[in-house]
Amino acid sequence: MITYDLSKRGKEPLYVFLYRQIRDDILSGKIAPNEKLPSKRTFAGNLNVGVNTVANAYDQLLSEGYLYSAEKKGYFATDMHQFSDIRINTSEPVQIESPEETDYFMDFRANRINLNNFPISTWNRCMRKAILDGGDSLYKTVPYNGIPELRNAISAYLFRNRGMSVNPERIFIGAGTEFLFKRLFELFDKGTNVAIEKTGFKKIAEHADRYNINVKVIPGDDEGMDVSALHNNDVEVVYVAPANRFPTGKVLPIKKRLELFSWAYKKKERFIVEDDYDSEFRYSGRMIIPMFSEDNKERVVYLNTFSKTMVPSLRISYMILPEELAKRYKETLGFYSCTVSSFEQYALAEFINSGAFERHINRMRNFYKKQRVAILKEFENSRLMKIAEIEEHNAGTHFLLRVKTDLDREYIYNEGINKELHISFFSDYSVQSEKEEGFITLVINYAAIVSDKIHEVVTRLTDIFMN
Amino acid sequence: MITYDLSKRGKEPLYVFLYRQIRDDILSGKIAPNEKLPSKRTFAGNLNVGVNTVANAYDQLLSEGYLYSAEKKGYFATDMHQFSDIRINTSEPVQIESPEETDYFMDFRANRINLNNFPISTWNRCMRKAILDGGDSLYKTVPYNGIPELRNAISAYLFRNRGMSVNPERIFIGAGTEFLFKRLFELFDKGTNVAIEKTGFKKIAEHADRYNINVKVIPGDDEGMDVSALHNNDVEVVYVAPANRFPTGKVLPIKKRLELFSWAYKKKERFIVEDDYDSEFRYSGRMIIPMFSEDNKERVVYLNTFSKTMVPSLRISYMILPEELAKRYKETLGFYSCTVSSFEQYALAEFINSGAFERHINRMRNFYKKQRVAILKEFENSRLMKIAEIEEHNAGTHFLLRVKTDLDREYIYNEGINKELHISFFSDYSVQSEKEEGFITLVINYAAIVSDKIHEVVTRLTDIFMN
Repeated sequence: MITYDLSKRGKEPLYVFLYRQIRDDILSGKIAPNEKLPSKRTFAGNLNVGVNTVANAYDQLLSEGYLYSAEKKGYFATDMHQFSDIRINTSEPVQIESPEETDYFMDFRANRINLNNFPISTWNRCMRKAILDGGDSLYKTVPYNGIPELRNAISAYLFRNRGMSVNPERIFIGAGTEFLFKRLFELFDKGTNVAIEKTGFKKIAEHADRYNINVKVIPGDDEGMDVSALHNNDVEVVYVAPANRFPTGKVLPIKKRLELFSWAYKKKERFIVEDDYDSEFRYSGRMIIPMFSEDNKERVVYLNTFSKTMVPSLRISYMILPEELAKRYKETLGFYSCTVSSFEQYALAEFINSGAFERHINRMRNFYKKQRVAILKEFENSRLMKIAEIEEHNAGTHFLLRVKTDLDREYIYNEGINKELHISFFSDYSVQSEKEEGFITLVINYAAIVSDKIHEVVTRLTDIFMN
Repeated sequence: MITYDLSKRGKEPLYVFLYRQIRDDILSGKIAPNEKLPSKRTFAGNLNVGVNTVANAYDQLLSEGYLYSAEKKGYFATDMHQFSDIRINTSEPVQIESPEETDYFMDFRANRINLNNFPISTWNRCMRKAILDGGDSLYKTVPYNGIPELRNAISAYLFRNRGMSVNPERIFIGAGTEFLFKRLFELFDKGTNVAIEKTGFKKIAEHADRYNINVKVIPGDDEGMDVSALHNNDVEVVYVAPANRFPTGKVLPIKKRLELFSWAYKKKERFIVEDDYDSEFRYSGRMIIPMFSEDNKERVVYLNTFSKTMVPSLRISYMILPEELAKRYKETLGFYSCTVSSFEQYALAEFINSGAFERHINRMRNFYKKQRVAILKEFENSRLMKIAEIEEHNAGTHFLLRVKTDLDREYIYNEGINKELHISFFSDYSVQSEKEEGFITLVINYAAIVSDKIHEVVTRLTDIFMN
């Protein structure tokens, strides 16, 4: 009869050790297929353990199917001889390190912000308040479109701050803009033609197949895309960022907007997707009216994010859908759960309702405005401007620097790295490649620049091109 | 010359009022296409305002494209006569109410939990600690696969608690299991054949086209799906919940697992998706070994969620990918940002590392175990058992109640509503419809039942079938 040396069990409970021994013997064939196992009582006596220990081990083996039982006959080993031996992997796993982030003197890429500006104690207070006040609903399943408290807060904010009239029922909360794009394009047929400007959102173009769309890059000029090309390309959806066209930062003029509306209103299934991702940051005049507010016929999908205005690590974005698409979303995608935890939704609603969000936006706007002035001044006084010019439109957190040079991208990039600068090129963001020889355009994102580094940053950048 | 009554401006800044008046007059044609506007100085004198007020209004109109300027000639209205009038919608939006949730005496659906059990103060402490200790990395862009701290914490937990050996580099954090399914199926060709058991996860089957897969419902018996049918159906991926097959709660026996491994190992592109969604809740014996640990050839995708073990409102799930798929994920989907905010990832890592998660799981397991005993006892002592039987397997937070009756679903459901019970049917969860006449199977999810309601719940349920 089978027996085991229970002294070898180490720290494991007796029954677990016994279970494991029997299991391994069945897997290895040491206990033959269909072999009868000793009765619990006999086995317990033999091993000098309690009957419960054997009973627990047998129960586990029964639930996992290593044993089967026949009434009044006892327990038998399952026949598994036709399968190759399996090994159960229980080695201790490794632990990983946080990836070493290169600590650049300056990183010009987007999505970097100056972290000191985030009002962490206020956010903390909102989190606490959410937890204290949220009550039961804080722990329940999140409605597919987000909690009503946050949708109301966003609607009220958009009215106060942007003059937008938005029914909260049309607002859909999601974990980031990319995620919402994905959901949005699920509302259209696969392979829907989506138009972007030639200097448009490169990520959409590069990953069009992931979004199940065809991207049509539409030619155009400084004033925007050539609307007649939409007709020729059988386009159903147009993607634009009218308040701050990326990466040039230009506003889409009203005439072009009206042309787009004319195009959209001509057929039922035509929509304009308006990405308003950093419209909050504008340094002269008031904020630009979104196309959403100019639309009379429910054709504009409006998207915005808190990752840009708050911190990149906060994954909360929203989209506002026209009636037809909101209905379609509910019917076809309403089965998906919302991807943002209620905790953060409540905290953000509190942050907005208490006025902290608007105070934060104003503070950031002033901060960026000062940064911008200081940086532009530093550039203007630098030698670099003998061979470079700046294009900027009082908006966003970056501008373009067009440098007359024969150096190639790779050289410039590597020289940047040598000087601890992470250079960002216009062509990183645009589907349009630069045509003109002898020029290279850099994107100077200054959201993360620290003011006492400005002089040094411009000096190092100048040295790359003019040493 | 145009003029405006500035006394009508209400609370708006002067320049905004002026901007709006001019804009509306250009849109309506009152200011003719290409009409020259007065110089800033003249206009300011006429209106009796500062030059800056007019300059600000003109600047805004210029950025939005309502005006254009010609050097040394002045400002002109843009020609928009070919477009129909647009109205800018600025009416105050409505606010919505939280949808009235019907307050059932008892709701048998899954995804309901007893909210009193969540250790809110500990969670709160972890959130605070995350904010205090997280430092800069808390505010930076989240790595596409989740923060290393959380992936390490999950790996260590799985080893301590389940004996699983998991490289944290293979762990991918996402906002909910549905979301991860979506990402997972993006790793396969469109239209990949995915097999589920006939009593399997209905949501996948119903929304297969949303996941870009073909679902093959595979026949089988109590012991699991008929593996030979996988070959006939050209299946590439098998979805199983081996620790607790939904909704029956049965364990997938080792023999069936080995058959599935044999099938998977025969071809390179075959994978087993193991959904371990509530394996933590098992009331007899130790937890069931996941197929992930039995796999020797990197073919098992393991999925689990914190929405079930913590609270449904927390949208954090994870999947563990085999080497090949992890590589593919990084290459093809690595461009997507992670969908879970760092704040909650840090807090959860702290919650796990401090041992609070395991204490919570143990507390919940004991709580559910007691609930289960009390509820089963109540059922067993009820009149209902004359016409009903229970199927349960010491696991999960629900069992099946098979009632001999000729009543139809609709009647039973409505009678339930009359008695303030939200009834849940086996057929709500299973792609298999009940074949046998004269029986109906209910899913009794008891996670949310309050103990002093148990007697009344069973009485009301009995009354539906036996009054």
